[in-house]
Amino acid sequence: MSQLTKTVLIMAGGRGTRFWPRSRKSLPKQFLSLTGDGKTMIQLTVERLLPIIRMEDIYISTNEDYRELVKEQLPGIPEENILCEPVGRNTAPCIGLGAIHIAQKYDDAVMIVLPSDHQIRMPDIFRNTLQDASEIAEDGHSIVTIGITPNYPETGYGYIKYIPDSRKNSAFAVDRFVEKPNLEKAREYLKSGQYLWNAGQFVWKVSTILDDLKKYMPDTYEKLMTIRAAIGTDEYNAVLQKEFRAMQSQSIDYGVLEKADSIFVIPGSFGWDDVGSWLAVGRLQKEDADGSIVAGDVITVNSKNCIIQGESKLIAAVGLENIIVVDTKDAILICDKEHAGEIKTVMAQLEENGRTELL
Amino acid sequence: MSQLTKTVLIMAGGRGTRFWPRSRKSLPKQFLSLTGDGKTMIQLTVERLLPIIRMEDIYISTNEDYRELVKEQLPGIPEENILCEPVGRNTAPCIGLGAIHIAQKYDDAVMIVLPSDHQIRMPDIFRNTLQDASEIAEDGHSIVTIGITPNYPETGYGYIKYIPDSRKNSAFAVDRFVEKPNLEKAREYLKSGQYLWNAGQFVWKVSTILDDLKKYMPDTYEKLMTIRAAIGTDEYNAVLQKEFRAMQSQSIDYGVLEKADSIFVIPGSFGWDDVGSWLAVGRLQKEDADGSIVAGDVITVNSKNCIIQGESKLIAAVGLENIIVVDTKDAILICDKEHAGEIKTVMAQLEENGRTELL
Repeated sequence: MSQLTKTVLIMAGGRGTRFWPRSRKSLPKQFLSLTGDGKTMIQLTVERLLPIIRMEDIYISTNEDYRELVKEQLPGIPEENILCEPVGRNTAPCIGLGAIHIAQKYDDAVMIVLPSDHQIRMPDIFRNTLQDASEIAEDGHSIVTIGITPNYPETGYGYIKYIPDSRKNSAFAVDRFVEKPNLEKAREYLKSGQYLWNAGQFVWKVSTILDDLKKYMPDTYEKLMTIRAAIGTDEYNAVLQKEFRAMQSQSIDYGVLEKADSIFVIPGSFGWDDVGSWLAVGRLQKEDADGSIVAGDVITVNSKNCIIQGESKLIAAVGLENIIVVDTKDAILICDKEHAGEIKTVMAQLEENGRTELL
Repeated sequence: MSQLTKTVLIMAGGRGTRFWPRSRKSLPKQFLSLTGDGKTMIQLTVERLLPIIRMEDIYISTNEDYRELVKEQLPGIPEENILCEPVGRNTAPCIGLGAIHIAQKYDDAVMIVLPSDHQIRMPDIFRNTLQDASEIAEDGHSIVTIGITPNYPETGYGYIKYIPDSRKNSAFAVDRFVEKPNLEKAREYLKSGQYLWNAGQFVWKVSTILDDLKKYMPDTYEKLMTIRAAIGTDEYNAVLQKEFRAMQSQSIDYGVLEKADSIFVIPGSFGWDDVGSWLAVGRLQKEDADGSIVAGDVITVNSKNCIIQGESKLIAAVGLENIIVVDTKDAILICDKEHAGEIKTVMAQLEENGRTELL
């Protein structure tokens, strides 16, 4: 059974703006409340871990722009656990930074890595899966990923191919990681029954991931060690700035997972949703009798299947169907659900016209 | 040819809120700019008269709530020409009040009565029609109405039946006035070719209408004479308050026109539009390449045939078709064009909930 302390690194540096106009560069999705219960995505992420992880063992990886948001939304997280990257260098340096901080505190520990902005409908099953993954990770030198059982041929995620006859407890050995496929490939993967979605959830021992970084990304590892030596000293910030900036931008998938040799995947079936667009709000929140999701001061007349997010003004929706309405202090979005993918066109136009205050 | 001075009474006391949320009880349609040229309906109404009527001969009938709006929007109108009704008593008392003020200034005059909030696309033809009507009105003791040639079976207007073989210059004798018909009747009227829309445009001599009021509405006439005697005295306001409030609420159609015996109608074909709802904005303003009418800070992506009226915020419209969007400082309307008639349901809900600040 589990001996090592379980720690978590929650990755919250993303600048995604898929929930424009509510999400902005200055307020990305992980800091928004999208599930109708008033809690933000990152607050929910922490909350669902607390039955199995102590608050002081939760680390948040983010950047200086969001440090205050993290402190405000997660007052229980110790300030030294908020790790701010000086610059975005993809997931490998980010995870490495988390690993050295945890390694500095504990001789060794289980390290769970999770995104900060996904929704999980069945937290008990999720925690059980994390427990299972932790046991496998602790028992030897394995990397454990949690793959999501797909239910349609999504082209926006990477996939994990597992080896069906390789079962170890609740896990399977991983055959390979594959990048986002085209639709044809995605259909093949779904049909084969041998591919899971890669949802960016990993479990390993700190010693394991540091060994693997040393082996597969020696340059990055060396810089991490320089930073580690400065933890707790006055030079920490200066060293972090210098060394982190000098690291190669690399994903953990490409830098380590695709090369490591003992990788397992546990199929997760805990109602995972990446909350990738306004459409997800329709999946996550309780609909009214007309199939609409409504928040704020809203009057609907003869409207159905809408998503309406008010701010301070009254919103009157008359005769609308499948329309997304989002009001904010300086911008209003009105978008047909089928055209939700084109919201980025609006943002591109704003960017082009130098209207960065709206992005 | 014309000998008498031509005067106009513009009726601007209406509290209509068909352009909610832009129109409010405190800012009805006649004071809004809806045609895309920045001028309000009442400003356009005055402007199109100026080639044939002097500013000092234009009278505005309104109420105290709108006196300042009238002064602000029509600074050229003499203050004594702004006639404020103490209370709404329908069109007969309103017209009577205008008539006594004009009679007090001129021994007799031609008096043209017009709504303040209709659009006329061909002002030259309109002015010609007014000239024709004035000549007929001046020549004898006739009431002249201007009827609009209908092009579909509208059920929202009253109709005027004319006698085809009764032509006098450009006018026809009126057989009768009929109230708003049901659709079946409206179709009959349209098919018969003998009915015009009653658009509330009348021309008569002041002496004619006062004689008719005396004959058909003697009580109202008597009160008007009491008010007239007070014009220019310190008692005017007190007398107006007392006498006007005591008048019977009556339309000029029912009170006089349906009873008078020398009534003519001139078919008007000057591109009249009563601008009855947001849909009218689509008829009145120039569309962009996608068939949309857009005002304010608006970005459209893959949208067509929309009416979008921005205020201070950016409005981003994505994948919308036939949608009306109106932003104001405290309310946003988003409405499918086919459901424009249901905007009043929103207002009824606001009324019911005591949210009068939004009405």
